[in-house]
Amino acid sequence: MKPIEGRRRVIIEEIQPSIDCGRYPAHRILGDPIAVTAAIFADGHGRVAARLLYRHDTEKHWRVIPLTPLSNDLWRGEFLTDKLGTYHFAIQAWVDHFATWHDDLKKRLAAQPDPHQPSEAISTPQDIPLALHIGAQLIDHIGELIEGPDRLPISEAAANLRTLAAQGSGFYSDPITAELCELIARHPDLELSTRTETDFTIWVDRPRARFSTWYELFPRSCSPTPDAHGTLADVEAMLPQIASMGFDVLYLPPIHPIGLAFRKGPNNNVIAQPGDEGSPWAIGAPDGGHKAVHAKLGTLADVDRLAAAARKQHIDLALDIAFQCSPDHPWVAEHPAWFTKRPDGSIQYAENPPKKYQDIYPLNFDSTDWRGLWDELLSVFLFWVDHGVHCFRVDNPHTKALPFWEWCITEIHKKHPDVLFLSEAFTRPHVMYSLAKAGFSQSYTYFTWRNHKAELQEYMKEITTPPVSDFFRPNLWPNTPDILHEFLQTGGRPAFIQRYILAATLSSSCGIYGPAYELCEHLPFKPSSEEYLHSEKYEIRQWDRSDPNSIAPLITRVNQIRRENPALQVNDTLHFHPVDNPALICYSKVSPHQDNLILTCVNLDPHHEHAGWVNLDLGALGIPSNTSFELEDLLIGDRYTWRNRTNYIALRPQQMPAHIFRITR
Amino acid sequence: MKPIEGRRRVIIEEIQPSIDCGRYPAHRILGDPIAVTAAIFADGHGRVAARLLYRHDTEKHWRVIPLTPLSNDLWRGEFLTDKLGTYHFAIQAWVDHFATWHDDLKKRLAAQPDPHQPSEAISTPQDIPLALHIGAQLIDHIGELIEGPDRLPISEAAANLRTLAAQGSGFYSDPITAELCELIARHPDLELSTRTETDFTIWVDRPRARFSTWYELFPRSCSPTPDAHGTLADVEAMLPQIASMGFDVLYLPPIHPIGLAFRKGPNNNVIAQPGDEGSPWAIGAPDGGHKAVHAKLGTLADVDRLAAAARKQHIDLALDIAFQCSPDHPWVAEHPAWFTKRPDGSIQYAENPPKKYQDIYPLNFDSTDWRGLWDELLSVFLFWVDHGVHCFRVDNPHTKALPFWEWCITEIHKKHPDVLFLSEAFTRPHVMYSLAKAGFSQSYTYFTWRNHKAELQEYMKEITTPPVSDFFRPNLWPNTPDILHEFLQTGGRPAFIQRYILAATLSSSCGIYGPAYELCEHLPFKPSSEEYLHSEKYEIRQWDRSDPNSIAPLITRVNQIRRENPALQVNDTLHFHPVDNPALICYSKVSPHQDNLILTCVNLDPHHEHAGWVNLDLGALGIPSNTSFELEDLLIGDRYTWRNRTNYIALRPQQMPAHIFRITR
Repeated sequence: MKPIEGRRRVIIEEIQPSIDCGRYPAHRILGDPIAVTAAIFADGHGRVAARLLYRHDTEKHWRVIPLTPLSNDLWRGEFLTDKLGTYHFAIQAWVDHFATWHDDLKKRLAAQPDPHQPSEAISTPQDIPLALHIGAQLIDHIGELIEGPDRLPISEAAANLRTLAAQGSGFYSDPITAELCELIARHPDLELSTRTETDFTIWVDRPRARFSTWYELFPRSCSPTPDAHGTLADVEAMLPQIASMGFDVLYLPPIHPIGLAFRKGPNNNVIAQPGDEGSPWAIGAPDGGHKAVHAKLGTLADVDRLAAAARKQHIDLALDIAFQCSPDHPWVAEHPAWFTKRPDGSIQYAENPPKKYQDIYPLNFDSTDWRGLWDELLSVFLFWVDHGVHCFRVDNPHTKALPFWEWCITEIHKKHPDVLFLSEAFTRPHVMYSLAKAGFSQSYTYFTWRNHKAELQEYMKEITTPPVSDFFRPNLWPNTPDILHEFLQTGGRPAFIQRYILAATLSSSCGIYGPAYELCEHLPFKPSSEEYLHSEKYEIRQWDRSDPNSIAPLITRVNQIRRENPALQVNDTLHFHPVDNPALICYSKVSPHQDNLILTCVNLDPHHEHAGWVNLDLGALGIPSNTSFELEDLLIGDRYTWRNRTNYIALRPQQMPAHIFRITR
Repeated sequence: MKPIEGRRRVIIEEIQPSIDCGRYPAHRILGDPIAVTAAIFADGHGRVAARLLYRHDTEKHWRVIPLTPLSNDLWRGEFLTDKLGTYHFAIQAWVDHFATWHDDLKKRLAAQPDPHQPSEAISTPQDIPLALHIGAQLIDHIGELIEGPDRLPISEAAANLRTLAAQGSGFYSDPITAELCELIARHPDLELSTRTETDFTIWVDRPRARFSTWYELFPRSCSPTPDAHGTLADVEAMLPQIASMGFDVLYLPPIHPIGLAFRKGPNNNVIAQPGDEGSPWAIGAPDGGHKAVHAKLGTLADVDRLAAAARKQHIDLALDIAFQCSPDHPWVAEHPAWFTKRPDGSIQYAENPPKKYQDIYPLNFDSTDWRGLWDELLSVFLFWVDHGVHCFRVDNPHTKALPFWEWCITEIHKKHPDVLFLSEAFTRPHVMYSLAKAGFSQSYTYFTWRNHKAELQEYMKEITTPPVSDFFRPNLWPNTPDILHEFLQTGGRPAFIQRYILAATLSSSCGIYGPAYELCEHLPFKPSSEEYLHSEKYEIRQWDRSDPNSIAPLITRVNQIRRENPALQVNDTLHFHPVDNPALICYSKVSPHQDNLILTCVNLDPHHEHAGWVNLDLGALGIPSNTSFELEDLLIGDRYTWRNRTNYIALRPQQMPAHIFRITR
């Protein structure tokens, strides 16, 4: 069957950015220029023209900018965003008959015999008068499509060509002015243009979605009074200190009432003693569930105050949303359909045979009342948004239906496009990426288990380059309340410094679970376990923040370097440079405006000094070869002058296991 | 807005093969197993099941085969084709609750204390009876969905589980038989399954689309009588010779009446003398156009005879379809709307200022009567198909609208799926690839201009691996009537041998323009021109096929090697092996059944002997290291025994510039 219009001769392919053929939006940051590229071409030798149509979701009309050709039929355009939310874009392209004709005319003109030196050359006339008439016809046709003031100059241009043609002979120069070309370009004949069949979308986040520094703490451990249960007010009192360390997201584990049934004791003991506080992730008790505040922590009003106080310090308060219930959660009685009932009438608790987690009831996303469940879960987020929380860390999102997340996040973003979501999914790559496509702003990563140079390089390349980087934003955590890696258990204080510097310079977003981190807490529950001994998940801890061995000053300095150097606030320019020692890793980042260049070298061995030769990729650094350049080590202030690609470094873990160089070219 | 069914939890991504998100079919060959892969996964820990649906375009019902998991959420399935034409496929996947439950049960069973060695271990019961009841429920539910004989054993299985559960204690072994699993797998509950939204398509060609050896000749030069105008009957007489040389496609330049207006003389002289035969590409004269036969060549009946005789020799007769007209073509008078009229009323001839081709009128695909034009052009193909021609070489398809080709080839293939199209588009990659996507079975390539190792390797890799190889099939030509490369002009007889061996072993399809090629015709029209002196495009040539310097015997041998070695009939296993001499290139191909292994080494320098060390990638060859293997040089019969990866070769161009080894492992 023939197409409706067989004269649409232009093909548009390879549109970028596009995630899964446009099924999902690409993720970008407010203010970033958004580059769109595509392969655009037609049969034959006609000149092709193309333009980019884009609009914010709230706008009716498309904004239009021209696309410009690169090499090999690739075209590019760039637009700026001025609003958070969804942008749509499409591409339209056509054969530009006027430009084609003008190219042809210029060839004819060039082929004229030079009037100043008479010659026999080219006896055949170049049909220039005829060509001028053809041009006049084209211009007339364009004029017919134009309303308004541009019409007159167009028709005059056609007339001029005919007058010129009337000469019939002699030497001709190009009668087409740049003004006329520009005028005509403003009125393309789109009748036979090709337009991308589906529109593509871009999701635009606030800058913190890309550049953020997270600090996690347990409020109940924040009381200045020994053995007292900390409160949200205690957390509020700590805000200045957290801000001064350079963190801009404060993340709290669940703050809701904790279940009593099957409550866990210290060190995950299945039998709790009276007075044991239980796990904040066993959510729900007679006094409330996901929309309630644990009485010992405070009240909703305390949340409002804490969120407001944090905002004053330019800190986002992030709550932990863990969609699971203790047996005492009000939902269990009110919505039995949301849980899995066993043949004996009991409710199915979390299990991984032979392990049992009787204090946790998972929600059943196969419930016949999935609509009711989805609505309630959405309302949980909206409830906390209304209390000033615009950032969420979502617990195990990969055990909830992926279509739910796409719907839920979209619904929240409709009214609140500034809300950020961190996905705590430590699972297979496709599932983690799928959550990012569904709308999560950031994700935890495998960084926590990547300690060797080769695996760090391979993994960081994968997650900082397209296609992954078009939708997935890494947030690197050296530790979490669930993960005390063996490297930290055995590496001593240098290991904590190394891992934080790696996280903070490899990725524009990173975070730590403190004060366990800065105090180098390293004792595991048992050998070969990644669980902390006396994990705060099950008991209140007292932390001595004044410990002289705390690496808080180092972390503060690193965070300050991150804030002062835009190169460290992006990931797409991450570039690794070879070092001839496997214990030494070296990589650079450049700021979007190319005006800030950071080169980081880290000794990955916490126990021994290592030295080696860095072989810099000067091209990636924008440094001409055979020139010297200045490096300032932002960690300790030393200055160096390097020349050419090969340079020597030596790092002592006990002293300072890394350089963070700012290079001035 | 919520989805209609929020419990469709499985995601299906990265479906392969798919060209431009399924916009175009992937190209495959009849009989080849067609492998389909996709990333398939869901949230949570449930077991996923997936199946492939496929059907030939003429079939109403889907055929179904299970997909099997590879690693990392990738799944794979394979189906066989038994018909030419279009196949559709889709993927359906779901969470398999029964398999999930069975996995869970097996964990519980494994956690039972060993009854033979009484121990205190695991005091907590594993809730096995309860698990059995849950299984019984699941099986009941499956039974409810089943009609017919399978229903009874299913319900029995449920009953058995309940009986077993009634024991209430003791040691349990797995009650689920393989038969039951297999039975249940036959009746999946698809209510909540996910299905790919759009179907994907595969175009299945006959084998010659991939493996073909083309011979082009000018019929008018085929007369045994000197100075006589050759005929189709003369060509018919040559068929046995062409077949004996091992060619299976005989391609003739246009056989239509040649225009008189502005007819070109020898060597493209703009003034033809009386008796000059003109260019076969200046199609159309008072006695007919694209559906007529040049009177001096013969009649339609001769075409029928030639096509039939060729078929007897297992040769495809291929006609050249060049959609352009001489000023004398009947279309010019009958369909003026198909041409571009200039303001002076004349018709626009082909031009590239200052060059003029007044003997050629291009067709105007922007014509208001494009529908009429498309219909007529389609009818040209169908006309020749009815005369037994099922293979076409299309001249400059890239100067005709791409949407036209997609429509035209689709229409032809509806009735005649065996028809093959070779695209003669020497233009930019995107346009060449776009023609292949539109339906061309094969394409000319840049091979003609690739003479150095690096560029040959890079280019061949690009066109023999996905995504390109999924839709684009290369046909390698060392020469054409339009292209006598400088390498052949200056390289002497060895150059012709080298280039043919490269074409014939790098690609499963290749071709030559003869007898110019086997007779090593190397004189250009003028220095730095790729045009032949006394080009057959403009005059009749006499060829002395008995010339002792002819490389016909070598070509015959190479073609025989191609026929006898399935490895040379495919491209997807092409693998290059490093040689420490840039003048030596080495590559291997393995047959689909892995039972035929060819290693080719070519000296790319026509003037000097070159020697070097080949560093074989034994893995790619399926040869274990530290074993020796036999090589037989199929060109000259020598036998070698090689051991391990590094081996020495030396090639004298004057003697034999290549090895074509068959390796026996």
